[in-house]
Amino acid sequence: MNKDSLRQLLEQVKSGTLGVDEGLDHLKHMPFEDLTFAKIDHHRALRCGFPEVIYCEGKTTDQVATIFEKCADTGVNVLATRADQQAYEAICDVLPEAEYYELARCITLRQIEAEKSTGTIAVVSAGTADLPVAEEACVTAEIMDQTVVTYYDVGVAGIHRLLAHASDIQDATVVVVVAGMEGALPSVVGGLVSAPVIAVPTSVGYGASFGGLAALLGMLNSCANNIAVVNIDNGFGAGCLATTINRLAERTRESD
Amino acid sequence: MNKDSLRQLLEQVKSGTLGVDEGLDHLKHMPFEDLTFAKIDHHRALRCGFPEVIYCEGKTTDQVATIFEKCADTGVNVLATRADQQAYEAICDVLPEAEYYELARCITLRQIEAEKSTGTIAVVSAGTADLPVAEEACVTAEIMDQTVVTYYDVGVAGIHRLLAHASDIQDATVVVVVAGMEGALPSVVGGLVSAPVIAVPTSVGYGASFGGLAALLGMLNSCANNIAVVNIDNGFGAGCLATTINRLAERTRESD
Amino acid sequence: MNKDSLRQLLEQVKSGTLGVDEGLDHLKHMPFEDLTFAKIDHHRALRCGFPEVIYCEGKTTDQVATIFEKCADTGVNVLATRADQQAYEAICDVLPEAEYYELARCITLRQIEAEKSTGTIAVVSAGTADLPVAEEACVTAEIMDQTVVTYYDVGVAGIHRLLAHASDIQDATVVVVVAGMEGALPSVVGGLVSAPVIAVPTSVGYGASFGGLAALLGMLNSCANNIAVVNIDNGFGAGCLATTINRLAERTRESD
Amino acid sequence: MNKDSLRQLLEQVKSGTLGVDEGLDHLKHMPFEDLTFAKIDHHRALRCGFPEVIYCEGKTTDQVATIFEKCADTGVNVLATRADQQAYEAICDVLPEAEYYELARCITLRQIEAEKSTGTIAVVSAGTADLPVAEEACVTAEIMDQTVVTYYDVGVAGIHRLLAHASDIQDATVVVVVAGMEGALPSVVGGLVSAPVIAVPTSVGYGASFGGLAALLGMLNSCANNIAVVNIDNGFGAGCLATTINRLAERTRESD
Amino acid sequence: MNKDSLRQLLEQVKSGTLGVDEGLDHLKHMPFEDLTFAKIDHHRALRCGFPEVIYCEGKTTDQVATIFEKCADTGVNVLATRADQQAYEAICDVLPEAEYYELARCITLRQIEAEKSTGTIAVVSAGTADLPVAEEACVTAEIMDQTVVTYYDVGVAGIHRLLAHASDIQDATVVVVVAGMEGALPSVVGGLVSAPVIAVPTSVGYGASFGGLAALLGMLNSCANNIAVVNIDNGFGAGCLATTINRLAERTRESD
Amino acid sequence: MNKDSLRQLLEQVKSGTLGVDEGLDHLKHMPFEDLTFAKIDHHRALRCGFPEVIYCEGKTTDQVATIFEKCADTGVNVLATRADQQAYEAICDVLPEAEYYELARCITLRQIEAEKSTGTIAVVSAGTADLPVAEEACVTAEIMDQTVVTYYDVGVAGIHRLLAHASDIQDATVVVVVAGMEGALPSVVGGLVSAPVIAVPTSVGYGASFGGLAALLGMLNSCANNIAVVNIDNGFGAGCLATTINRLAERTRESD
Amino acid sequence: MNKDSLRQLLEQVKSGTLGVDEGLDHLKHMPFEDLTFAKIDHHRALRCGFPEVIYCEGKTTDQVATIFEKCADTGVNVLATRADQQAYEAICDVLPEAEYYELARCITLRQIEAEKSTGTIAVVSAGTADLPVAEEACVTAEIMDQTVVTYYDVGVAGIHRLLAHASDIQDATVVVVVAGMEGALPSVVGGLVSAPVIAVPTSVGYGASFGGLAALLGMLNSCANNIAVVNIDNGFGAGCLATTINRLAERTRESD
Amino acid sequence: MNKDSLRQLLEQVKSGTLGVDEGLDHLKHMPFEDLTFAKIDHHRALRCGFPEVIYCEGKTTDQVATIFEKCADTGVNVLATRADQQAYEAICDVLPEAEYYELARCITLRQIEAEKSTGTIAVVSAGTADLPVAEEACVTAEIMDQTVVTYYDVGVAGIHRLLAHASDIQDATVVVVVAGMEGALPSVVGGLVSAPVIAVPTSVGYGASFGGLAALLGMLNSCANNIAVVNIDNGFGAGCLATTINRLAERTRESD
Repeated sequence: MNKDSLRQLLEQVKSGTLGVDEGLDHLKHMPFEDLTFAKIDHHRALRCGFPEVIYCEGKTTDQVATIFEKCADTGVNVLATRADQQAYEAICDVLPEAEYYELARCITLRQIEAEKSTGTIAVVSAGTADLPVAEEACVTAEIMDQTVVTYYDVGVAGIHRLLAHASDIQDATVVVVVAGMEGALPSVVGGLVSAPVIAVPTSVGYGASFGGLAALLGMLNSCANNIAVVNIDNGFGAGCLATTINRLAERTRESD
Repeated sequence: MNKDSLRQLLEQVKSGTLGVDEGLDHLKHMPFEDLTFAKIDHHRALRCGFPEVIYCEGKTTDQVATIFEKCADTGVNVLATRADQQAYEAICDVLPEAEYYELARCITLRQIEAEKSTGTIAVVSAGTADLPVAEEACVTAEIMDQTVVTYYDVGVAGIHRLLAHASDIQDATVVVVVAGMEGALPSVVGGLVSAPVIAVPTSVGYGASFGGLAALLGMLNSCANNIAVVNIDNGFGAGCLATTINRLAERTRESD
Repeated sequence: MNKDSLRQLLEQVKSGTLGVDEGLDHLKHMPFEDLTFAKIDHHRALRCGFPEVIYCEGKTTDQVATIFEKCADTGVNVLATRADQQAYEAICDVLPEAEYYELARCITLRQIEAEKSTGTIAVVSAGTADLPVAEEACVTAEIMDQTVVTYYDVGVAGIHRLLAHASDIQDATVVVVVAGMEGALPSVVGGLVSAPVIAVPTSVGYGASFGGLAALLGMLNSCANNIAVVNIDNGFGAGCLATTINRLAERTRESD
Repeated sequence: MNKDSLRQLLEQVKSGTLGVDEGLDHLKHMPFEDLTFAKIDHHRALRCGFPEVIYCEGKTTDQVATIFEKCADTGVNVLATRADQQAYEAICDVLPEAEYYELARCITLRQIEAEKSTGTIAVVSAGTADLPVAEEACVTAEIMDQTVVTYYDVGVAGIHRLLAHASDIQDATVVVVVAGMEGALPSVVGGLVSAPVIAVPTSVGYGASFGGLAALLGMLNSCANNIAVVNIDNGFGAGCLATTINRLAERTRESD
Repeated sequence: MNKDSLRQLLEQVKSGTLGVDEGLDHLKHMPFEDLTFAKIDHHRALRCGFPEVIYCEGKTTDQVATIFEKCADTGVNVLATRADQQAYEAICDVLPEAEYYELARCITLRQIEAEKSTGTIAVVSAGTADLPVAEEACVTAEIMDQTVVTYYDVGVAGIHRLLAHASDIQDATVVVVVAGMEGALPSVVGGLVSAPVIAVPTSVGYGASFGGLAALLGMLNSCANNIAVVNIDNGFGAGCLATTINRLAERTRESD
Repeated sequence: MNKDSLRQLLEQVKSGTLGVDEGLDHLKHMPFEDLTFAKIDHHRALRCGFPEVIYCEGKTTDQVATIFEKCADTGVNVLATRADQQAYEAICDVLPEAEYYELARCITLRQIEAEKSTGTIAVVSAGTADLPVAEEACVTAEIMDQTVVTYYDVGVAGIHRLLAHASDIQDATVVVVVAGMEGALPSVVGGLVSAPVIAVPTSVGYGASFGGLAALLGMLNSCANNIAVVNIDNGFGAGCLATTINRLAERTRESD
Repeated sequence: MNKDSLRQLLEQVKSGTLGVDEGLDHLKHMPFEDLTFAKIDHHRALRCGFPEVIYCEGKTTDQVATIFEKCADTGVNVLATRADQQAYEAICDVLPEAEYYELARCITLRQIEAEKSTGTIAVVSAGTADLPVAEEACVTAEIMDQTVVTYYDVGVAGIHRLLAHASDIQDATVVVVVAGMEGALPSVVGGLVSAPVIAVPTSVGYGASFGGLAALLGMLNSCANNIAVVNIDNGFGAGCLATTINRLAERTRESD
Repeated sequence: MNKDSLRQLLEQVKSGTLGVDEGLDHLKHMPFEDLTFAKIDHHRALRCGFPEVIYCEGKTTDQVATIFEKCADTGVNVLATRADQQAYEAICDVLPEAEYYELARCITLRQIEAEKSTGTIAVVSAGTADLPVAEEACVTAEIMDQTVVTYYDVGVAGIHRLLAHASDIQDATVVVVVAGMEGALPSVVGGLVSAPVIAVPTSVGYGASFGGLAALLGMLNSCANNIAVVNIDNGFGAGCLATTINRLAERTRESD
C-alpha cells in the first residue's frame, strides 16, 4: 500500500470505478488473515523481504500446525522456529514434505526452488554447545536461499583455530558470530574482516554468565566497529538480518 | 598481510631477495605505529575499510592531539569522537582545516575528496534529546563518504509523524534508528522497511530508563527481524556499520 | 465503616442503645472472617467496589476450595485466578455451576446477574503467546459486569494490523494493552487514543527479555502520557483497574 | 483525521473539489509543525485530550523557548516540565504572563480560562522530600483544569496521619500516591478507597533504594488491585493520567 | 575458651599440672567434632546461646541423618530446617520421638523440657502463601523455649485486619513480620509498636517480585526505625534472632 | 490512643461530657502538627519509644530549621541526621546549644538529662572509611541515653585485630557491625557473640561493590544466625534499633 | 610454532627442502583435529601446560565419548568435567580404566604416571554443601599431578574451626578457598597466609544469594590483597590455576 | 605469633620468666598500632609478605599523612594508592624523598634497596584509557622489588598488535591483563601463555559497560583456564597478587 497504489486508488475513486465506501475499506484494511488467535501477515514478503515466520514457543501444537498450513497455502517457503518434534509430526500429517532440523529446532517447507546467493554468509561459532543457535541461523538463511559456510568451535582461547580460517572468513559478504560465556569472539572476528558482523550471544555458560548476559554485554561493548548484536540465542534473527544484508548486495549486483 | 602477500614474501625469501631475518621481521610485525601510550593501526583502512578512529574519552588533550596528527600525517580522512572543545582547539593549532561538530562532539579532517555514495543511509530519531547520538552517526557516515538523510523527532507516541515519512525511509539502503526511553521506534520502523535496521539505544530518559537499559532491552527484544543493536549512545558504531553495509551494496554495484 | 456509620455508632452509644463495650468491639473489629490460615474480607465489596478475589498460587487445593465456598456463601460473584484444573474440580464437587477458563486459568461463579456496562473496555494484545494474560484481564472484567472487546495479535512490527482497528479502539472507555518482548505496543496505542491505557507487560520472550523485565521497563518509560503499568503477567490487576475506571464513568452517567 | 474526515476527503476527491495530488498530500501528512530539531504535534489536543507538553531535560534553553512560543502561538494552555529558572527567564522575555513553579520545576501559560472539574484528584505523598514530584502532578492537572486536593507527609510508618484523612481521600474521583523509600503508601491507600490509584515511585531514599527501584518494585507488586504505576519521579505522567480518568467521569456526567 | 579459662590454663602450665605440649593442644583446638564432610560445633550452645542447627538443603539424606543423630547424642534439643519427608523418615528410624512440621519443613527433637519464656514473640504474616516461612520462624523459636503468638493474613491492602490486632501485637517483646510481594507490612507494624521488628521478605509473588527482591528492597528502605531485615525466606534466622532478643529481656529479668 | 483511652473516650461520650462531634474529631485525629510541607508526629515518643527524628536529605535548610525548632518546642531531645554545616548554622541562630557532629553529619539538642543505660551497645567497624556511618549510629544511640563502646578498624583481613577485642565485644548487650567492601565482618562477629548483631553495610568500596550492594548481599547471606541487616549507610537505623533492644533489657531490669 | 621453529621453517624454504606452498600451509595451520562439531587442540599441552579438558554440559553423550576417546588416543591423561553417570558409562565401554568421581562430577583417565608435586595445594571450603565444587578443584589438580590437602566445613561463623588449621594452611604453596552464601572465607584466609589465594564462589545459598552473586561480589571486594576470583562454581578453573602456580614453583625448583 | 613462638611463650611462662598476666597479654594482643581512627598492622609484612598499604579513598589528607609517616617510621618501603596531589604534598613536607606517580595515583617511599626479581611480570593492557589501572599494578609490583615489562594498547580488535608481542609475553612468569569495554583480552592472552593470568576489568567504556560490569563478567566467564579476576579497576590487587606468585617462584629458586 505505497504512494503509487494510493494515487491509483484515489484516481479510481475520482473516476467512479471505486465507490467511496469501498475506497474507505481499502484504506482501512491492509491484507492480513485473521485466525482469531493470530493474524497472519501475508504481505510481509512484499514489505519486509520474506514471509512471516512462525515462532512456536508459547503456541499450542494445534496453533502451530494451523498457522503453518495457512502459510503453506499461499505457496511460499515456510519456516517455523523453536519447534519441537510434536509440532513437526502434526505438520507432517498434512504436509509430508516438511523437514525437521532437530539441532536447530526448525521446521521448513520449501515450495519455491531458487538459485542460491552468489555472496556467502559465514556462520562462526565459539564452542560445540553454541551449535543449536548457529544452526538456527543457518537453516533460516538457507530457506531464504542464501549460501552459508560454517566455521565451528573456533573460540578465542585457542586463537590459532580462528586464524587458520581467517582468510576464508574474510571472503564472506556477511559474518554471523555465535558465542556464549565471555562472548569475545565477535570482537576478534570484527577486527579481522571488513564485512558487517552480526553477533549472537548464547545462554551457554554457568554462574556469572547469568543466562547469556555476560556474552551480551561483552558483544555490546565490543571495541570493533562493524558489529551489531541480536538477542541472546536469537539465531533466527541473525539469519534474517544476514539474509537482508546479503540480498542487498545481490540486488545491487543484479540491478546493474 | 593477506595470503597473496605472504606467498610473495616466501617467494622473496626463496629467491634470496629477502634475508631470513628480514622475513622474520615482516612476519612478526604487522604495520602499526607505537606512541608508547597508543599503537596506531595504520593498516586498518585496508583490513576493515576505514582508518582507525580516535575515541577521546579517557585520553588527555595532548594524547588526542598527538594521535590525531599522526593519523593526519598518513594523508587519510580523520575522525575523533567524544571530543570536547579543548581537544578541537589543540588540533586546530596544527591542523586549522579540522572541523568541530559541537552537537555530535566530533572532530573531522577531510583530506581526501570522494564521491558520495549512491545508496542512502536514513538516520531516524525519536526525540530532540536523541540528536547528539543521531548526529554522531551522521558525521561518522559522512566522513566515510556516505549520503545520509535524517528524519528527527518521529517517536512512536505520535505514529503519524513517522508514517508521513515511511515511503521516504523505505528508499534507504540502510536505516539507523536512534531512540531513548522505551526504545520502541526500531520495532515499528523494522516492520515498515525491508532494509537492515541498526538500532541505537540512547541514555535519554530518567527513572526506570536506568541510563538507557530500558531502550537497550526493548531493542534487543524487538519482534521485527531485520534489526541489530549497538551499545547505548554508540552513534559512531552505528554510523560505521551502516557505512560498511552501504559500501557492500556500492562495491557490488561497481564490480558489475 | 465510614464517617456516617461512625457518627451513627457514637449516637447509639450516647443514647444507650449500644453499650460501651459493644461500641468498643464495633470500633475494633471490621468485618472479616477468620479461617486461621486466611482472613476473608467480606466488606471489601463495599470498600473497594468488588469482593475479595482468590489468588490460588501458593495455596493448597483444599485452602482454595474452602475460601471459594466461604465467599460463595455470601451470595456474591466469585473469582479465583491462577487456578489449575485440580482446584476447579474440587470446587465443582460443591458448586457445579462454577466455570473454568483454561487459557486464562480462572474459575468464576456468577450468582448475581447484572447488566453489562455501557462503556467498553478494549483489551489489545501484541502476540498469540500473550493471550493467557489478556484473557485473565477479560474474565476479570466480565465477572465484574463489564463489556469487553478484544483486539489480539496486533504487535508493532506489523503496525497496519493495529491501525486497521484504530478507530474501534478509540471508541473504548479504557484500553488494556498486553505485550511481551519489547513491550512497545502501549506507547503506540497511547498515542492513538484519548482513553486511559493500562499496560500489562508479559513474561513472553527469551534471552534479554529477562522474564518480562524488558517489556516492563519499556512500558514504564513510555513517551505517551496516558499510560500506567501493572506487574508482569498481571492480567487480573489490569482487569480490576479497568473495571474501576469504567465504573467511574458509568456511575457518573447514572448519577446524572 | 478520523473516519468521518477521511470519508469527507474521499467525497471531495470524488466530486472534484479536491485534486488527487492534494488528496494525496492530505492523506500523507497529518498536522505537525517541523522546527528541524522538533516536530510539534498541534493536533495532539484533539487526539489525546491535551496539547503536546514540553519536556525540557536534554533540550537547550533556546530550543525550549522556541517550542514554548510556537505552542503559545496556537492559543492553547502551555506546560513545560523539568524546566529550570533559565528557561523560564528566556520564555518570560517574550511571554511575561508565563508562571514558574520552582518546587515542581514547571512553567505554565494559561491562555484559556475554563471551569475547574467537579470531581477531584487527590494527590497523596509519603514524605516532605517527595513534594517536587507531587507538585509536578498538581501543576499538570491544574493547567488541565482539574480540581486537585493534596495530602502530604502521610507515610505508612505513622499510619494514623493517613487514617485521619481517609474519608476525605475516599471522596476523590482519582487518587495519585507519591512515595519514595519502600513505596508502601499506594498499597495502603489502595485498600482504603474504591477509586483508581496512580502510584508514583520517587527517587527519594538512599542505599538499597537504588534511585527509586525499591519503591517502583514495591508498587508494581502491590497486593491492592486498583493500582497502576508510572515511571520513577514521573509526576507529570501521573497528573496527565489522573486528568484523563477524571475527564472521563466529567464527560460522562456532561453527556447525560 | 574465654579469658578466665585461658588464665586457668596458663596457671596450670605454670604449676606443671599441664605440660607445654598439652597446653599447646588446648590452645590450638577448640571443641568441634569432625565427621569428614562436616564439623559439628558442639560448643556453639555455650558461645551463641543455642546448639548448631542443621540446614538440610544441599546435604544428602544420609548426611542429614548422621549429623542429626550426632547432635542428639549430646542430649540437647535438635532442629533441622529445609527438611523433606525423606530426611524425617531416616531420622525417625533411629529417633522415633522426632517431630516433622510439614508446612515449616522442620524436624525437631525435644530432649530438654524447659519453661516457656514470659515475654512473647509475635509472628505476623501478610498472606496465606507466606505461612511456610512464618511457621519456620515459629518452630525455631518454640524449640528454643519461646512463647510465640501468630497473626496471619493481615496484609496492608486491608489495613483494618491488622489494626484489629494492633494492641495485641503491641504487647509482644519482639515482632517478626513476614511478607512477600511489596513487603510493606513491616513498615506499618514498625510504626505501631515500640518493640524491635525483624522483617522477613518472602519469595511469594510473581513478575517484578523477582523472587522476593521487591519485598527485600522494600523492607530495607522502610521509613520505620525499629526494623532490621534477614534474608529472603529466612524464617529460621528471624526465629533465632527473635529468640536472642527475647532471651536478653528474660535474662535481665531473671538476673534482678 | 490505645484501648484504654478509647474506652475512656466512649465513657465520656456516653456521659455527655464529650459531644458526638467532638468524639468524632478525637477518633479521627491523632496528635500531629501540620506544617503544610510536613506533619510532625509528636506522639511518636509514646508510641515508638523516641521522638520523630529529622532526616535532612531532600529538605531545604529552612524546612530543617523549622521542623527542628518545632520539635525543640516540645522540650524533648532532638536529632537531625544527614545534616550539613549550613543547616546547623541556621539552627544555631535560634538554638545555640545545639551540637554538630561533623563526621556523623548529625545535629543534636539535649534538653533532657538522663542516666546512661547500664547495658552497652558495641559499635564495631571494619575500616577507617566506615567511620561516618559508625559515628551516626553512636550519636543516635547516645542522644537516646545509651552507653556506647566503639571498636574501629578491625576488618577481617587482619582477624587478630578483632580477636584481640573479642571478649570485650562479648560483654555488650547489642552489637552494631559496620562494614563496606565484602561486608564479612558481621558473620565473624556473629559467630563470636551471643548478643543480637545489627549489620550495617556501607557504600565504602569501588568497582563491583556497586555502592554497597556487595556488602549488603554478603550480610543478608550471613551463615551466622543472630544477625539482621539495615539499609546501606543507615547508621541511624542501626543506632535506633540497638537502642530499642538495649532498652528492652533495661526495662525488664527496672521492672523487676 | 615459536620464533625458533619459524626461523627453521624459513631456512628450509630458503634451502629448498620445503616448497613455498608447503611453507604456506605450515604457516597457516597450527595443529588441531577437526571432528566437525569440535576442534580438539592437541598442542594445548605444549602451549598451556595441560591437555584440552572436556566440559560436558551442552554436549551429547556421544559427543563427549567421541572427544574423550580422541584425546585418550594421544596417550595423555584425560579429564572431563560436569559429566553425568551416562557419559561415564559410554566412555567405560571403550576405556574401562576411566574413573568417575560422583560428587565432583568428573571422569578421569590416567595414562601417564608421574610424581606428585612437592609443594601442596590447600583446598579450603566453608560448608558441606560446597563440597562438589571443592572436589572438582581437587580432582582437576590431582590428575595434573599435584599434591592436594583439604580443609572442609571451616566457615567464618565458627572462626575457631578455621584458626585450628591456620598453621597447616600456611604451609601450602597455593590456597583454593571455596564458599557460598556470604563468601567471606577467602578474606579471612587471605589475611592469614602469604600464599596466593584463589577464591571460588559457589551457588550454595538461597534468597538474596542470587545463585552465587552475593558470594562472587563479596570475594571480588575482599580487603585482602592476595586474592583473585574465578567464576561461580568453577572448581575446575581454580584447580587449573592452582596447578599452574604450583608448577611454576616446582619448575623453578627443578631448574636450579 | 606462630606455633613456634607460642611454644616459646608457654616455655617462658612455665619457667617463670614470663608472668601469667604478661603471658595473657601476649596471647591476647598481636602487634598492631592503634591511631584511634586506624589500626596499623605492622606485622603484616611477616604474615602476608609485604607491609600494610594505605588506600587513600575515604580518608582525609591528615589521616593519610599520619598513617604514611607511622609506616615510614618502621623503616619499610611504603605505598599509598588512590592518592591525590594534595596527599602527596602533605607527605612531602615530612618525607621529601616520597615519589608521586600521577597517572597511577600512587605515592611511594623507598627505604630499602633490593635486587629486582629474576622472573618478570608482564602487564598487558587493551587501550590507552586503561593505563591508570595498568600503571597502578606496575608501581605496586615495582615497590615490591619486581621486574615489570609492559605491553600497552594491544586490544583484541587489532589482534596482530598482540600477536606481535606474543613470544615476549610468553617469557613472563605471571601476566597481568588490564582491559575495559568487553574485557576479551585476558581470554586471548590466557590461550597464548602457560603462565597464570590475573585479569583486571576496568571501568573504561560507556553505556552497557555499566561501570566495568561487562568487562568483569566477560573475564569471569573466560573459556581459558589459567585466569582469575580481581575487582574492577583494582590494579593494586593485581600487582600484589602477581608479586606474591612471582616471589613464590623466586623463593623456590633461592631455596635450591
